[in-house]
Amino acid sequence: MGKTLAEKIFDAHRVNMPFPDTHVLKLDAVFCHEITTPIAITDLQARGKDRVFDPSKIKAVIDHVTPAKDSKTAEQGRILREWAKRNGIKDFFDIGRNGVCHAIFPEKGFARPGYTIIMGDSHTCTHGAFGAFAAGVGTTDLEVGILKGVCAFHFPKTIKIVLNGKLRPGVFAKDVILFVIKELTVNGATNMVMEFTGPVVDEMSMESRMTLCNMAIEAGGTCGVCYPDMTTVNYLWKYIKDEFKTKEDALNEYSKWISDKDAVYEKVYEYDVSDLEPMVTFGYKPDQVKPVREMAGTKINQIYIGSCTNGRIEDLRIAARVLEGKKISDDVRGIVSPATPEIYSLALKEGIIEVFQNAGFCVTNPTCGACLGMSNGVLASGESCASTTNRNFNGRMGKGGTVHLMSPATAAASAIEGKIVNSSMFV
Amino acid sequence: MGKTLAEKIFDAHRVNMPFPDTHVLKLDAVFCHEITTPIAITDLQARGKDRVFDPSKIKAVIDHVTPAKDSKTAEQGRILREWAKRNGIKDFFDIGRNGVCHAIFPEKGFARPGYTIIMGDSHTCTHGAFGAFAAGVGTTDLEVGILKGVCAFHFPKTIKIVLNGKLRPGVFAKDVILFVIKELTVNGATNMVMEFTGPVVDEMSMESRMTLCNMAIEAGGTCGVCYPDMTTVNYLWKYIKDEFKTKEDALNEYSKWISDKDAVYEKVYEYDVSDLEPMVTFGYKPDQVKPVREMAGTKINQIYIGSCTNGRIEDLRIAARVLEGKKISDDVRGIVSPATPEIYSLALKEGIIEVFQNAGFCVTNPTCGACLGMSNGVLASGESCASTTNRNFNGRMGKGGTVHLMSPATAAASAIEGKIVNSSMFV
Repeated sequence: MGKTLAEKIFDAHRVNMPFPDTHVLKLDAVFCHEITTPIAITDLQARGKDRVFDPSKIKAVIDHVTPAKDSKTAEQGRILREWAKRNGIKDFFDIGRNGVCHAIFPEKGFARPGYTIIMGDSHTCTHGAFGAFAAGVGTTDLEVGILKGVCAFHFPKTIKIVLNGKLRPGVFAKDVILFVIKELTVNGATNMVMEFTGPVVDEMSMESRMTLCNMAIEAGGTCGVCYPDMTTVNYLWKYIKDEFKTKEDALNEYSKWISDKDAVYEKVYEYDVSDLEPMVTFGYKPDQVKPVREMAGTKINQIYIGSCTNGRIEDLRIAARVLEGKKISDDVRGIVSPATPEIYSLALKEGIIEVFQNAGFCVTNPTCGACLGMSNGVLASGESCASTTNRNFNGRMGKGGTVHLMSPATAAASAIEGKIVNSSMFV
Repeated sequence: MGKTLAEKIFDAHRVNMPFPDTHVLKLDAVFCHEITTPIAITDLQARGKDRVFDPSKIKAVIDHVTPAKDSKTAEQGRILREWAKRNGIKDFFDIGRNGVCHAIFPEKGFARPGYTIIMGDSHTCTHGAFGAFAAGVGTTDLEVGILKGVCAFHFPKTIKIVLNGKLRPGVFAKDVILFVIKELTVNGATNMVMEFTGPVVDEMSMESRMTLCNMAIEAGGTCGVCYPDMTTVNYLWKYIKDEFKTKEDALNEYSKWISDKDAVYEKVYEYDVSDLEPMVTFGYKPDQVKPVREMAGTKINQIYIGSCTNGRIEDLRIAARVLEGKKISDDVRGIVSPATPEIYSLALKEGIIEVFQNAGFCVTNPTCGACLGMSNGVLASGESCASTTNRNFNGRMGKGGTVHLMSPATAAASAIEGKIVNSSMFV
């Protein structure tokens, strides 16, 4: 009987099984940010266990509130900074070098095919785009991971989502994942791995695959995964070129992290997305999704382009193409947060920052606090935001505020009109 | 008997004198930001007086915490935004078009020679650089100003500060004003106008004059003033060119806002600043000032370049000249906040944003919250900041933190070394 990608990763990393269906896996990386890790650090210190299993496998960044907005967040940053220094964690990205965790860690080559990764963050599933098993965990698991380099999981069932056809212009990975969540519902993949495959995924850039996998958690999924291919190898090449003679060698090696043809799935969904339209959420659950067309004209107060879902260079390029030479409506405020310093620098060189600036957007430093109402773009009560983020929960971006999730293209077009509009008219 | 610039402005704006030494002045402008004005707005509403004396004379901006960091600041922005809309205040600068009040209002031509200006902000004195009487006020005065367009003041005594000589390379307006405050002490100009004059001021750009006047309040001064001259006319020309046939006409008109030769001063200080060195504060009062040389080697954790004191294009250019092709120390974090979108855009075009970015600085959107520990750069307890801001009060940039005030050149040089160093070695 064949195995799924996730099952193969489990088999290769299993250390032991202390209880039935409790698989303790060796971890290839533990990712950390300043909101959840300081709690673990402080607790480990209190228990006299201020150690890390392997400083080279721990990566840390300040990203949610940066630069600090108050004494509390300054202290969170300080705890993470001093812990990294004390424990010899070289890959710590402090203010000025920092970006959104799920953008900067892949960008630095820290997510690889076949890896096991944990982080105290819901959207850790993003890294599955590289053919890794990456899961968000709570403080206890994070502490064990930091200290021992292992984490216990149940054996994962996998849902396969086959995406056939070809996306129309103006339709992007974000529209696809919103559509998939609508189909599966917010509980449709609970505790399961969502495997994205098919010609549409094959065609996607790593950035788009990260957008897909990023929102697996919104259908309840533990992790989203894509198979590694030449796109994966190309993305990682600068970090792996000393490991392999040729890109083909890398591809051969990584191809062991592809599900077998006869793997057993909990369920297989097959969609032709050729006719898919731009999608947008309504209400307070990420499966409340409609075509933008049906929501056109909905009033918005703020547009936010950024986050671990859609703050990458591909996203900024798409939005800039829509915004170039245009001004956003006087009735709305636009905020864009390039996800990492590298993305910011690329956008600077390509004139994208200038396009946003000229259009009337506020260009923030790399950060993601707006997405969860923590910094740099919190809504007032009664306000609504057209957002490229991942959660439209009630009050997510600010108490009493409403969030409409959408692609960067739709968000940019909506900024110009001052209300939700279909981006396909612009691109 | 001759009159000072401030006395002339009082004479020209006096509406009445209800009590001895209580001069009610007609206001030319009321400036507003989102921290202090919403209190006035809410109170005016509660008293059934939700009106403004003249919407064209009220200017408002969101600048201290932008984009909003939490529900409270989002609400403050909303109150200001809706008030501006309700009352037909066209010059409201919302997120994306907003910058630091004392930078964006002069940039838009709102501060003019001979003007009376109030604002609920200590550093309103900045606008005196244009030969205006500009004073920070409390909520009651602000409410009266908004409603009636008048404000009551005591008759101002003036201190004249004559700055002779020529500044050495690497020495800037910030060094001069730190030196002056050291000489006068923090109480030396309490309730008085500080008039800056002499060849050194004549040579200064409007940006530098604003830096001088900005810190008048740190010596207790109600307002700092400079005489309007051709530098003033050139700065304002795009806004006043329809009022005057030629720049000379404007200069003639504005020359009535220069103190008479036989004006009576409370005190006259005359300094030759030719030998002045770069200056920096120690301790928690702005008059605790030493030459940078004597503080060299002092450890810092953060460098902040920005604020209403030193976030203008001239400041960024100076810092970028120091930083070009260099990296800041791994031991510090650098934050730069261009003061307005126009400054940001200029810096973008001139490659200055790229210099900061490449040096390892975090480039924020235009804002000034770090200066007073409100957003975008709050210190943790025990940390110290090399800062181009205006106040080194205990905990000003974050509880338990220390601030060293200095010029952008010194701040940039200190960022490279990771400790306070004399900028003159770099420029």
